Amino acid sequence: MSPARSHPTAAVVTVGTEITTGLRLDTNSREIAATLTAAGLRVLETVSAPDDRDLLASLLRRLTAEMDVVVVTGGLGPTHDDVTREAASRAIDLPLHRDPTLVGRLEAAAARHAEPEAAAQIVRQADVLEGATVLPAVKGTAPGQLVTASSGVTLLLLPGPPAEMRPLLESALPLLPGAERSPARVLSCAGITESDVQVRVQRALGDLAGIGFTVLARLGEVSVVLTDEGADPDTLASAATAAATALGSACYSTEGAGLAETVLTQARHRGLTVATAESCTGGLVAAALTDVAGSSDVFLGGVVSYANAVKTGLLGVDRGLLDSFGAVSEPVARAMADGARQALGADLAVAVSGVAGPGGGTPGKPVGTVWFAVADADGDHTDMAHYPGDRAAVRTRATSHALDLLRLRLAELL
Amino acid sequence: MSPARSHPTAAVVTVGTEITTGLRLDTNSREIAATLTAAGLRVLETVSAPDDRDLLASLLRRLTAEMDVVVVTGGLGPTHDDVTREAASRAIDLPLHRDPTLVGRLEAAAARHAEPEAAAQIVRQADVLEGATVLPAVKGTAPGQLVTASSGVTLLLLPGPPAEMRPLLESALPLLPGAERSPARVLSCAGITESDVQVRVQRALGDLAGIGFTVLARLGEVSVVLTDEGADPDTLASAATAAATALGSACYSTEGAGLAETVLTQARHRGLTVATAESCTGGLVAAALTDVAGSSDVFLGGVVSYANAVKTGLLGVDRGLLDSFGAVSEPVARAMADGARQALGADLAVAVSGVAGPGGGTPGKPVGTVWFAVADADGDHTDMAHYPGDRAAVRTRATSHALDLLRLRLAELL
Repeated sequence: MSPARSHPTAAVVTVGTEITTGLRLDTNSREIAATLTAAGLRVLETVSAPDDRDLLASLLRRLTAEMDVVVVTGGLGPTHDDVTREAASRAIDLPLHRDPTLVGRLEAAAARHAEPEAAAQIVRQADVLEGATVLPAVKGTAPGQLVTASSGVTLLLLPGPPAEMRPLLESALPLLPGAERSPARVLSCAGITESDVQVRVQRALGDLAGIGFTVLARLGEVSVVLTDEGADPDTLASAATAAATALGSACYSTEGAGLAETVLTQARHRGLTVATAESCTGGLVAAALTDVAGSSDVFLGGVVSYANAVKTGLLGVDRGLLDSFGAVSEPVARAMADGARQALGADLAVAVSGVAGPGGGTPGKPVGTVWFAVADADGDHTDMAHYPGDRAAVRTRATSHALDLLRLRLAELL
Repeated sequence: MSPARSHPTAAVVTVGTEITTGLRLDTNSREIAATLTAAGLRVLETVSAPDDRDLLASLLRRLTAEMDVVVVTGGLGPTHDDVTREAASRAIDLPLHRDPTLVGRLEAAAARHAEPEAAAQIVRQADVLEGATVLPAVKGTAPGQLVTASSGVTLLLLPGPPAEMRPLLESALPLLPGAERSPARVLSCAGITESDVQVRVQRALGDLAGIGFTVLARLGEVSVVLTDEGADPDTLASAATAAATALGSACYSTEGAGLAETVLTQARHRGLTVATAESCTGGLVAAALTDVAGSSDVFLGGVVSYANAVKTGLLGVDRGLLDSFGAVSEPVARAMADGARQALGADLAVAVSGVAGPGGGTPGKPVGTVWFAVADADGDHTDMAHYPGDRAAVRTRATSHALDLLRLRLAELL
């Protein structure tokens, strides 16, 4: 394996006691890490710290000494526990001063608040590190700051709310050192175990020089990330082709597309429309499809038939089937898919009916039992699975599998 | 403020290049941090590191020197980039040995894999730190390990997949030092800004000794966390009451309940059933309601009416309304709510119709415009909002507001 090209190193810090106490899920770290990685930086650490000035100052002192770039989000707001500005000032020994232009903008924004004290606190957001470039707020009131310290480290401070953070990160990106696009290829797979993917890809790549790979598994979906570790772009492309061939029909994209996106692209390509009928997934399949912008030309809609009366009323499921086989059964899943296809006037419909738990399981149909059906002009296809895990895991796995069944059926309808 | 009680300190480490490159969202940190916090530990850092033996060993060396407890997830699998066992061994100077009982169990599990090489790699998971307690895998094949080093630090290694991690964390919890329940109260609010909440709570608490608070905002929902910093339980309870009173009807729970959970509890209490009719939220309102276990006694189902033909067909929306006012309008939202209530036979129905973007906006109805309606036996209530942010933000805010409108209407139906 040839030596890796030199990439600047980076750390991402998210600030907030709500994160370190587990009250809030941090999604900024992932988003910033992905952006920095795509820009050619090597993220060696993502850290969350509580709203504690001393702890944060000491964390930032360590990271600014070790890394080329440190990106911090959160703790830039107006309230008493927003300590990022002061901690950064101590960590890189640069004083804060109050920026008069920012004060003017913030006072205008302050007029929106009902509470006069809230308005008064807002001007704290005008405190800027000496020599920093101010990144004016695009959403919200908190501006970002970018400064290069005398040691050479670049420190970027961004607000915590993702909608406020995102545009400022984009605008700061060209100002970071070594922003060069690092090639990476992502293969998306479904219906295969992580270990089998690992072995097949390893065998397919053989001793190809300068290519690294990681296998990522999550509730019914597996991705393979092929990274450039000194190879040329042609080698990376042939590695992706070799790995995809070894994975066969389990691999549905060599460009990192998601399952919902792939279903929509395939259906659009064939001029077909899609509908859903969901019981245990409760709208998650429809939500995954509509999460993709522009889905409305393919996805007509769906029915969440939680109660049996909705299965019979809106989807036309025969009450006799429900009585004889129960809601979680092959005949009912098939009738739901047929019913959705007709009621919504779609070319294809997928149906999901299962026991998500924790209650509702029986010896014959334990928690995790899920029936699926796909209906189209040529008839029906059904499938059944027993999923491990809790309610959320069963719902997520069932959602992925419903989308995968649509994908596999669409692939047959060439 | 009286001095805080002494809580053992903890760090949470999640291992995986998929996390530090932003390919995968880490949800384990949050879950483990919440569990440790509830058990009375003080989490001072959550960190993610790539699959790199040297980096991880150095990170674990620092954290095991600074903290009382270090919990690590990920990197315990069978593949070549699973380096946590070796890194932990170096960090706390304890050798690894292969546990014969585990080897036996793993060989049985290995039989499930299609690829013989995958089966051979699996026995690496039997390598255990000297003196560690083995936590046998409940799901999957990777066992956990718990060891107390000579320095006194407790190191807990857990597998990365959440469904495998969770039961092992639960079983290890009583073995961690200082597991004592730390009181905390969470007030849940909607329809109010973060800054206004901050000021009202600060004023309500005044100079009450020994109570700390943090305000958490996220896309349409705000929470206040009141923590014990030396106060007695009675003081914490009266602080929660005072803060809730100051927040008025914006505060819907003093026990940290979620919006969907609150809607379901209120409706159940009044013996009422609920249905949904969704356009731009595409199933997210139904998914939020069905995410709560036991929702089926209240939630009958919903229609995702993405195409106008589904609005007229399944919900009976008059085509004339769509032609005259457009799908994103007060009359159509009202007709969707009325239609869902009738079609699904529910007591209450909420409807959402908006422009989530990025396309579809017009000067009169820009991206972020969303109409809402709630229908019940007494008639309809409508509301309109303009949300900032991208497609995901608009959909999330609209979902929260739809649930909040149901909550407010249910509160009137005493």
